[in-house]
Amino acid sequence: MIYLDNAATTLKKPPEVIEAVMRAMGSMGNCARGTHQSSQSAARAVYQARVKIARFFGCKRADHVVFTANATQSLNIALNGLFATGDHVITTAAEHNSVLRPLYRLEKEQGLCLDLIPADKKGNLDLDMLPRLLKSSTKAIVCTHASNLTGNVTDLEKLSAFAKERGLLLVVDASQTAGFLPIHMERMGIDVLCATGHKGLMGPQGTGLLCIREGVKIRPFIVGGTGVQSYSQSQPEQLPERLEAGTLNAHGIAGLAAGIDYINQIGLAAIHAHETALTRKFYEGVSPLPGVTVYGDFSKEHAPIVALNIGSWESGTVSDALSEEFDIATRSGAHCAPLMHKALGTEQQGAVRFSFSFFNTDAEVDAAIQAVEILCRETVGSSANHHKIPL
Amino acid sequence: MIYLDNAATTLKKPPEVIEAVMRAMGSMGNCARGTHQSSQSAARAVYQARVKIARFFGCKRADHVVFTANATQSLNIALNGLFATGDHVITTAAEHNSVLRPLYRLEKEQGLCLDLIPADKKGNLDLDMLPRLLKSSTKAIVCTHASNLTGNVTDLEKLSAFAKERGLLLVVDASQTAGFLPIHMERMGIDVLCATGHKGLMGPQGTGLLCIREGVKIRPFIVGGTGVQSYSQSQPEQLPERLEAGTLNAHGIAGLAAGIDYINQIGLAAIHAHETALTRKFYEGVSPLPGVTVYGDFSKEHAPIVALNIGSWESGTVSDALSEEFDIATRSGAHCAPLMHKALGTEQQGAVRFSFSFFNTDAEVDAAIQAVEILCRETVGSSANHHKIPL
Repeated sequence: MIYLDNAATTLKKPPEVIEAVMRAMGSMGNCARGTHQSSQSAARAVYQARVKIARFFGCKRADHVVFTANATQSLNIALNGLFATGDHVITTAAEHNSVLRPLYRLEKEQGLCLDLIPADKKGNLDLDMLPRLLKSSTKAIVCTHASNLTGNVTDLEKLSAFAKERGLLLVVDASQTAGFLPIHMERMGIDVLCATGHKGLMGPQGTGLLCIREGVKIRPFIVGGTGVQSYSQSQPEQLPERLEAGTLNAHGIAGLAAGIDYINQIGLAAIHAHETALTRKFYEGVSPLPGVTVYGDFSKEHAPIVALNIGSWESGTVSDALSEEFDIATRSGAHCAPLMHKALGTEQQGAVRFSFSFFNTDAEVDAAIQAVEILCRETVGSSANHHKIPL
Repeated sequence: MIYLDNAATTLKKPPEVIEAVMRAMGSMGNCARGTHQSSQSAARAVYQARVKIARFFGCKRADHVVFTANATQSLNIALNGLFATGDHVITTAAEHNSVLRPLYRLEKEQGLCLDLIPADKKGNLDLDMLPRLLKSSTKAIVCTHASNLTGNVTDLEKLSAFAKERGLLLVVDASQTAGFLPIHMERMGIDVLCATGHKGLMGPQGTGLLCIREGVKIRPFIVGGTGVQSYSQSQPEQLPERLEAGTLNAHGIAGLAAGIDYINQIGLAAIHAHETALTRKFYEGVSPLPGVTVYGDFSKEHAPIVALNIGSWESGTVSDALSEEFDIATRSGAHCAPLMHKALGTEQQGAVRFSFSFFNTDAEVDAAIQAVEILCRETVGSSANHHKIPL
């Protein structure tokens, strides 16, 4: 199988990651619930993972790295814990439902005031409208670092400069960029960084994280046991325990740390160069094909994602054909990015997303281009056109 | 090392569990985010795990098995999603902070009305006072199936009969009993069952679950992408997606399913018999020792947990001595069970908890008894008594 669905999860993990999880499963106790050797070794491994992640993302304090189950949980913790009734928050049309749904709920139930930066047909966000959206109650800008649908990278520098100037918090969803683009919270002025462990960071599923700038207060979302201050009726004040109730996934965290080690060893720049080369090659191979519509703006920095449609075929039909006829794994449909589909005009059709990882090869990209080419020819030749969606 | 901290997490996992996680990490895509082979195989594995868990716990519908990161998350989902302002909830002094803290927060922030069934010095709950606690607004009884501190098993039959008679929901925290005692939601009248995967179920860390009786409505707690109904501003209505936002830990779930398979293969009755024999043996070995105070009531069904103190030694000192001098892993301190410590009178001293798994042996229990005996002699002989806590 040629796996090109890495924006959903990286299927191929470095052997070191799998080995780290195996070792952890054979040796680790509960990481914050005892003082014996296996509990201590788990606690040390988790702490070392915090240190590695803090360094990797330019987060000043390792104890401000919070472990979660996935990016969605990280975002729920951040968004539910940061805002209060009457706060105004600016987000974007590029967001995943993991950002939109928590914000919609806060809007509906807690009186949050929400504004959206729209996207154009290429998926580019109109950041110039930011000053017009600003209110005295504006508390934060919440945005993805790259669209999970188009792969367009958000101009964080611009957002960050605006946020700093107006004293706003900048909350970033790095689900599609962690392990691909360099992220340095301090230098980039990011206040809260949310990411998942099982995509570009090459870790196991069941891992996610939240890096918090010193001084940013987030109310606990999930509450319960922490192994400290057991007699208090509420969560401890200090991080990371404040936001980490219940037993951590130390087995998974050991794997995530091994993923970070692997990236550091290869070098993020080398990974970025390889994935960018694959993405460009694929884009250049498919975009001239008759009937192919590629979404997103490839004139600038781009996540390793290419979303396209062939003629008016339902994206699911194309994805199924790629899987069944060519053994190529892609994702189709709505990608949990409703506003971006609206902007692109693909609400009905969805889009076929090809997404690349460090382990994909030039030959795989060639095969994928060829497969798209063959499907394009079939479409043009098809008179029945039974795949066509109702328009 | 003799690992007797299985109530925190089972350190030793069946080889089948580790192999299942390894295989999953080498083959699984994102389980609900595509139609290609690796995504489908992950989806099938996750669904099969639901089926196994539903059967294991007598939950009628496999799609009412919800996967979480741990029992704390399960309990947060259940408690935050079931109750509304003005609801009255009855819980017990045997609860872990994973039950107490969510309820305290609801009491403080949402106007929940909370009553507690107290425990006596043996940790037994006074269930006879239930009728006196009942109000017209009583919505549910929330209780642990067994105390994580004393190991006392709650009389669920009595609670359930009372709950059914009065139309109350019964929410059970089975963190200490899943994989030890038979649990059948339908027969036992349990409406919501919360459990963790990494203790008695022998699965990896990062796994937890929630089994929901058909007809019980729980509002979503964590919201975000589900791979379905992407254009809706809120979570889908149907289970399990309604309560499962974000990428599932399919790697861990594969391991959890292997844990359930392992238990079914050995037989829950055999596991229960072995762990009970170890627990009884240890209890009978240590309880007559001079200076030893054992907590809990061993005259009835008991989880594989024995908590004790030696003289007035700080529990942490004893636990450290067990670890350093005898290489025996136990847990000391407050065990996230503040009200039970109050009932036992061990708020300052904490307690040393020995907890057993299927993989522990008679010889290990003998060694643990001997170690406690030696420490008892040291205490009696110690004139300096520098370990003594201030009373």
